[in-house]
Amino acid sequence: MKTGEDRLVRKITQALAFKGRSGLALGAGDDAALLQPRPGRQLVLTCDWFLEGSHFLRDKHPPDSIGWKCLARAVSDVAAMGGEPRYFLLSLALPETHTGKWLGGFLRGLARAERRFQCHLAGGDTTRNHKILINVTVIGDVPAGRAVLRSGAKPGDLIFVSGRLGEAELGLRSLRSGRRVIQGKSSRWVKKHLYPEPRLALGRWLAGKRLATAMMDLSDGLSTDLTRLCTASRVGARIAIDKIPKVDLLKKKGRTIPSLTDLGLTELALHGGDDYDLLFTVRPKQGGAIPSSFQGLPLSCIGEITRERQLLLTGPEGLEEQLVARGWDPF
Amino acid sequence: MKTGEDRLVRKITQALAFKGRSGLALGAGDDAALLQPRPGRQLVLTCDWFLEGSHFLRDKHPPDSIGWKCLARAVSDVAAMGGEPRYFLLSLALPETHTGKWLGGFLRGLARAERRFQCHLAGGDTTRNHKILINVTVIGDVPAGRAVLRSGAKPGDLIFVSGRLGEAELGLRSLRSGRRVIQGKSSRWVKKHLYPEPRLALGRWLAGKRLATAMMDLSDGLSTDLTRLCTASRVGARIAIDKIPKVDLLKKKGRTIPSLTDLGLTELALHGGDDYDLLFTVRPKQGGAIPSSFQGLPLSCIGEITRERQLLLTGPEGLEEQLVARGWDPF
Repeated sequence: MKTGEDRLVRKITQALAFKGRSGLALGAGDDAALLQPRPGRQLVLTCDWFLEGSHFLRDKHPPDSIGWKCLARAVSDVAAMGGEPRYFLLSLALPETHTGKWLGGFLRGLARAERRFQCHLAGGDTTRNHKILINVTVIGDVPAGRAVLRSGAKPGDLIFVSGRLGEAELGLRSLRSGRRVIQGKSSRWVKKHLYPEPRLALGRWLAGKRLATAMMDLSDGLSTDLTRLCTASRVGARIAIDKIPKVDLLKKKGRTIPSLTDLGLTELALHGGDDYDLLFTVRPKQGGAIPSSFQGLPLSCIGEITRERQLLLTGPEGLEEQLVARGWDPF
Repeated sequence: MKTGEDRLVRKITQALAFKGRSGLALGAGDDAALLQPRPGRQLVLTCDWFLEGSHFLRDKHPPDSIGWKCLARAVSDVAAMGGEPRYFLLSLALPETHTGKWLGGFLRGLARAERRFQCHLAGGDTTRNHKILINVTVIGDVPAGRAVLRSGAKPGDLIFVSGRLGEAELGLRSLRSGRRVIQGKSSRWVKKHLYPEPRLALGRWLAGKRLATAMMDLSDGLSTDLTRLCTASRVGARIAIDKIPKVDLLKKKGRTIPSLTDLGLTELALHGGDDYDLLFTVRPKQGGAIPSSFQGLPLSCIGEITRERQLLLTGPEGLEEQLVARGWDPF
């Protein structure tokens, strides 16, 4: 008595154990999911496209990376509010040829992400399409009044970023250059591109301690995302080129990539997307409360918020230039 | 300082006034939306694909119908739980050629649906794609413990449907046959296909009065959806051909569609999708509490739930045949 779509849904719900989760009264298999909100908390709701051709390539990206990353990207938005992910809805459109082995790999990556982020399948929608289309909605929560918005930065606030910027973009370039992906053998940059780690613990710590005045995740590149944070906060920013944490080529066992100059690394760090690190601002008085690393993740102060609504980049000799948003923009 | 994507987001948020809604602490423009859940209620969460080629045709469906219907379809899932829609997330992928006039029409239809269903934009994601891709997530709520699931039907329960089945499918056929759509001039069938009305008031009334033991919306056709309800409830069903409310050809001012025989009308009612009417079951003792119409919408008892896990169709002479799921199945 089952349709093809019902069989596909069954395959998905079996791979992603969704039953008996606290707060989930009803998951996939009905018209909608039923959730019990936790008292004293606000809901955090976000959704993200993940489309073949735009966000991944069918022949370059391993299916388990696509499964991992489609959830990680949406979870990263919850991290950027200081929240905790709880459930997700998976909208999946697949060619019929991809409902076997490819789907198996995809679901393995997604199940691994589900466990890591403690974010569980609550429902979704499936259909057929000649290209692979994915949309993930994540629902999380945050103690009421504690979410960190993009709009809270004030002139004088210090600007911080986590991690090293441009790593994921370098990983993508390496992948595009045709290198085959061998599980467990990829460079840290390729891994960061394929299996990004949303900065959940950092986001929650910053929100819980009320240290961040504004926060967002770096998905489209620093130049584009800092522009957005400044627009939302109605401020400007001045950042120093030499303080931006760049790809560390020396970590690659002495080998360097010949085509990458210092300038190339700066370009990568300013405009490269997909790092899913956090960009946040801190009152100058509280700057000392930010450690140089958090659970092994470096935290760097890269500049400060200004009253003048422009973005300036300071060079090593004090030269200033306008920073133009040149990160990812689909339009 | 704005990217192309930011301009598109601005266009959307301006068309769909999302600010100052009760319970919406923060809408589009940050990493995620922040919502305040209402005490004593459970959340209802659902998402739906609406894809060019599969769910609508760019050259046949007016853009405002696409805007209306993408929200109506997802809201219908909330109606089917007996819930109340509150917010939606819009994921939209468009060709650049469609970010002007087409988008304007789409947003007009969506804004009309937003007002009608009292379901407001809370956020979303936009990107570029050569085909129009839409995914809508709706978040609603329902008094705790009152949601009506698919799984509550028991042998002996009476089976009801709202409306007349097959109308939307007939509308689609009429649209496909090449008739031009003139606003306000379409037949009721074409209108039902283009601008479906989720049965929100009926769903809430049935849930509030605890009259429905199981409920779902008819989106893929009666034969397919009744199969799903029976599978979820681990029961079977027997329905009578002559009790199924079919398209009423006489309403069309005496004109009939020559190609449609009685058999054709039955086929439409059994397997035609997109009606977004409600299918629900009622304990036999409470059957008398179901009126023959609710706010002008006919309600029809079409059969009963059986212990034997099969679907039977009873003809006018008492002949029984197996009912096979032949509604919409993308796979």
